[in-house]
Amino acid sequence: MSQKPKQVAIVGSGLVGSLLAIFLRKAGHAVTVFDRRPDIRTVEFSGRSINLAMSNRGWKALRQAGIEEEVRKLAIPLYQRAMHVSDEPVYYQKYGKEEEAIWSISRGVLNRRMIDLAEAAGASFRFSEKVWDVDLPTARLFTGETEKGEWEEYAFDHVFGCDGAFSRVRHKMQRRSRFDYSQDFIDVGYKELTIPPNADGSHKLDKHSFHIWPRGRFMFIAMPNLDGSFTCTLFLPFEGEVSFEKIQTRDDARDFFRKYFPTVTPDIENLTGDFFRNPTSALVTIRCYPWTYWDKVALVGDSAHAIVPFYGQGMNAGFEDITVLTGLMQQHGGDWERVFSEYQARRKPNADAIAELSYRNFVEMSSRTADPEFLLQKKIERHFANAYPDKWIPAYSRVTFSDRPYAEALAMGDRQEAIMREVMQMPDLENRWDSPEVTNRILELLDQQPVAAGK
Amino acid sequence: MSQKPKQVAIVGSGLVGSLLAIFLRKAGHAVTVFDRRPDIRTVEFSGRSINLAMSNRGWKALRQAGIEEEVRKLAIPLYQRAMHVSDEPVYYQKYGKEEEAIWSISRGVLNRRMIDLAEAAGASFRFSEKVWDVDLPTARLFTGETEKGEWEEYAFDHVFGCDGAFSRVRHKMQRRSRFDYSQDFIDVGYKELTIPPNADGSHKLDKHSFHIWPRGRFMFIAMPNLDGSFTCTLFLPFEGEVSFEKIQTRDDARDFFRKYFPTVTPDIENLTGDFFRNPTSALVTIRCYPWTYWDKVALVGDSAHAIVPFYGQGMNAGFEDITVLTGLMQQHGGDWERVFSEYQARRKPNADAIAELSYRNFVEMSSRTADPEFLLQKKIERHFANAYPDKWIPAYSRVTFSDRPYAEALAMGDRQEAIMREVMQMPDLENRWDSPEVTNRILELLDQQPVAAGK
Repeated sequence: MSQKPKQVAIVGSGLVGSLLAIFLRKAGHAVTVFDRRPDIRTVEFSGRSINLAMSNRGWKALRQAGIEEEVRKLAIPLYQRAMHVSDEPVYYQKYGKEEEAIWSISRGVLNRRMIDLAEAAGASFRFSEKVWDVDLPTARLFTGETEKGEWEEYAFDHVFGCDGAFSRVRHKMQRRSRFDYSQDFIDVGYKELTIPPNADGSHKLDKHSFHIWPRGRFMFIAMPNLDGSFTCTLFLPFEGEVSFEKIQTRDDARDFFRKYFPTVTPDIENLTGDFFRNPTSALVTIRCYPWTYWDKVALVGDSAHAIVPFYGQGMNAGFEDITVLTGLMQQHGGDWERVFSEYQARRKPNADAIAELSYRNFVEMSSRTADPEFLLQKKIERHFANAYPDKWIPAYSRVTFSDRPYAEALAMGDRQEAIMREVMQMPDLENRWDSPEVTNRILELLDQQPVAAGK
Repeated sequence: MSQKPKQVAIVGSGLVGSLLAIFLRKAGHAVTVFDRRPDIRTVEFSGRSINLAMSNRGWKALRQAGIEEEVRKLAIPLYQRAMHVSDEPVYYQKYGKEEEAIWSISRGVLNRRMIDLAEAAGASFRFSEKVWDVDLPTARLFTGETEKGEWEEYAFDHVFGCDGAFSRVRHKMQRRSRFDYSQDFIDVGYKELTIPPNADGSHKLDKHSFHIWPRGRFMFIAMPNLDGSFTCTLFLPFEGEVSFEKIQTRDDARDFFRKYFPTVTPDIENLTGDFFRNPTSALVTIRCYPWTYWDKVALVGDSAHAIVPFYGQGMNAGFEDITVLTGLMQQHGGDWERVFSEYQARRKPNADAIAELSYRNFVEMSSRTADPEFLLQKKIERHFANAYPDKWIPAYSRVTFSDRPYAEALAMGDRQEAIMREVMQMPDLENRWDSPEVTNRILELLDQQPVAAGK
C-alpha cells in the first residue's frame, strides 16, 4: 500500500536509529535524526563497548533494507565457542549446523557505516543536538544546549525514540499515568580491553571463534575485529571477594589477570592502563509498556526493552522491531495508529521473552556452569539433540538461527527444562547418560508433554 | 545519644513528611518542609482520596511522636467488615479480638492537623514552592516557579524525600546507574464518592464498620467520617465489559449503580455530578533501591515504596519507616551514614512484603472471592483459628494488629497457604470441614512444616 510521505524524527543515531532511517527513507518519508552526541564518525570510540554478534534476526532486517552485503564486509563469522577453562586445553563447541555462525562486528565500525548508508539514502542527521522534551500528542521536539537554556522547537508527524536504555523519549512517556516501567541492574559490571593483532596483522587467537574464559561468578571474553585485533570484555561483580571494588591499583589489576587468566594476560594490550582509563559499565534490564503514544510516538530497540548482553541479542532484537514495524507499515499503509498498536502488541511478549532468556543465561553462567549436575544435563541434551535434531532444537538455536518468535523459544525451552527435570531423576545417570533408556525416556516425555506446557 | 543539631529539609508536607518533621524537631534539628502544592489547610480537598485506616503500626509511631491522643480525636474505630453481598442480608466479620479495630480517618482532616502539630513543634513550612532538582552529594535543593525558570538554591545537611509515589527526589536518584526501580499499574482505577449524614448528623450506615459491596472484578467501599458522612470509593477496571470506559454519560453512571449497588445508590450524594467531576485515579506499586544516598538523602514512605491500597497499610508502612529511622537515630547518634544504611537494609524487605501482600489482596478480591473452593478454605481457616488462636494467627492480624515485620507476616502467610493446599486435597471436605479429622490434619501439618518453609 502506498503511504503519504511524512515528516519523521528519529531520536538517536545508534544502530537501531540509523537502520530505521534507511527503511523510512525507502518508504519515501522525510527523515531527521537527532543525536545528543557528536557524529561517531568524527570521534574516538568510547572504550565501553562489547562487540556485536549479528545473527539471523539482524541479517534479515539488513537484507530487507538492502544493506546486508555492505555489512557482511565488516563482519567475521564465528562458528564455535572456544572455551578456555582453567588448567585445561581449549575446547570448542560448535554453535549449530555446518554453516551456522554468529558474526562479530565492532559496534563503532558498524555504526559509522550505517550512518553513511542512512545519509546516502537521504536521511538528514543533526548531531550534538540534545532533545530535552517531547510533546507527545503533537509530536513536537524541543532541543537545546542545556536543559534550562533556550530551546529550539521542531514539529513532526511522528517521532521514534531510538535513544537507548536511558531514552529521553521514554522518560517523557514514563511520567504519564498507567505507564509500567522497570529498570533492574545486575550486580556484575563490565570493562572493555583489547588484544592487538600480531605484527603481520593476523589474529592472536582463532579468528572464527567466540573466546570465553569462564570463571563462575566472572568471565573474560574476546571477539575478533577485521584489523586483527580482539575486543575483549571482562564481566566481574562490582562488589565482593573477587570484584571491581577489590582492584584499586595497577598491581591489583595485574595480579588479578595473572591469577585467573594467565594464558591470555600476555596478549592484552596496555592492560593496566586501559583497566583504569576505560569505565566500568553497568548492565540493566529495562521493561516498559506501552511503547507508543497514539500514532505519534513509538519506542524502538533498547529504549523499549534493554536487555543484558548474555544472549548476544540486544541489537538483533532491536533490528527485529524494525522488521515488524516496517512490515506493518506496508500492510496497513498510512494507518499509523493501527501500525503502532499492532507493533507494540506483537513485540512486547517477545521483548519480555528475550529479556528473560538473556537474564537466565547470566544466572546460568554465574552459578550453574560449575555444577556437575548441570553439566551432565547439558551433555544429555546435546547427545539427544544429535540423535534427534528435529525433536530437540536447543533454545539457543531457536533464538540465534531462526526468526521464530522469542516467546516461542522461551516456551519451548521451558518445556525442555521440564522434561530434563524428570530425566535427571533417573538413578545412576552418570553411568548411563548416553544409554537407550535415557533416550527413550526423553522420547516418552516429549510425547506426553503437550507443547503448550512450556508456557 | 545526643546528636548535633542539623539543617534538615523534608520534601513533601503529606502525612509522612509532617510526622517526620515532628520527630526531627523533637530531636532538636532545624526542619524546613517544602511542598509544591498550596497549604492543604487553605484549600478544598481534591476529591480523589480514599479514607485512611490507621492500625497498630501507625498508632505506634504517633504515640512515640507524642500525638496519639490528638489524632484519636479525629478517628472512628471500625471493629468489623460489613459485607453487602448482592441479594443477601448484610453480614459482619469481626477484624480481630474484642477491642481490635482499624481507625477510619479522612486524609485531609488528618493532614491538616499534622501540619498544625509540626508547626507547633517548630518546623517551618514552605508551601507552593516547587523542588525541581536535588544535588545528592551536597544535599542542596533547587526550587522555582517553573522547571525552566529562575531557581532558588538551598543548602542543607540532609534531605528527606517524603514526596510520594511520583517523588521528585527519587526521580533524581533514579537517573543514576545501578538504581533499581519499577512502577506497575493495575488495570483497576478508583473514584471518590460521598454518602452524606442524616438530617440529624448521624451516620446513614453502621459507623463502626468498614462497608464493602464486593462484586468480583469491582467493588464499592464506604468509611465513616466524624461529621456523619462516609467517604466512598468505587474500584473498577479502566477497560472491559464493566469498566470506567463504559460509563460515559450520567445515565450510564446511574444505571451502573442501580444495577450493581441498588441498596446504597439512594444514599450517595450527587452521584452523577461527582462521578464526572472527581477524577478517575490509577493505582500503582513502586519499588526501588537504594533508598538513600550516603548520609545526605533518604526516601521515606510512598516515595520509597508506593503500594496498592487493598491492605490499608500505605500510611501505616510510611509511619513505620519513621519509627525505624528515628529509632536508629537514637541508637547511632550523629552517625547518619550508618543510620541511613541500616534504615534501608531493614525496611526494604518489609516494604517489598507489604507491597506483595497488598497486591495479593487485590488479586484475591478480584478473582477469588466468588470461588466456592476459596470460600471453603477461608471457612476452615477461621474455624481452626477460633479453636487454636495461638497456632493460627491470620496474616491480616499480623499485618494490622502487631508490629512484627511485614516480611514475617508474608512468610507465615505462605506457610499457612502451603498447609491449606494440603488440607484442601482431603476428600468430601464440604461435608466435614469442621470435623476433628480436618482439625487434626492441620495440627499435623503445622508440626511437620518447619517455620522457615514459609519463605
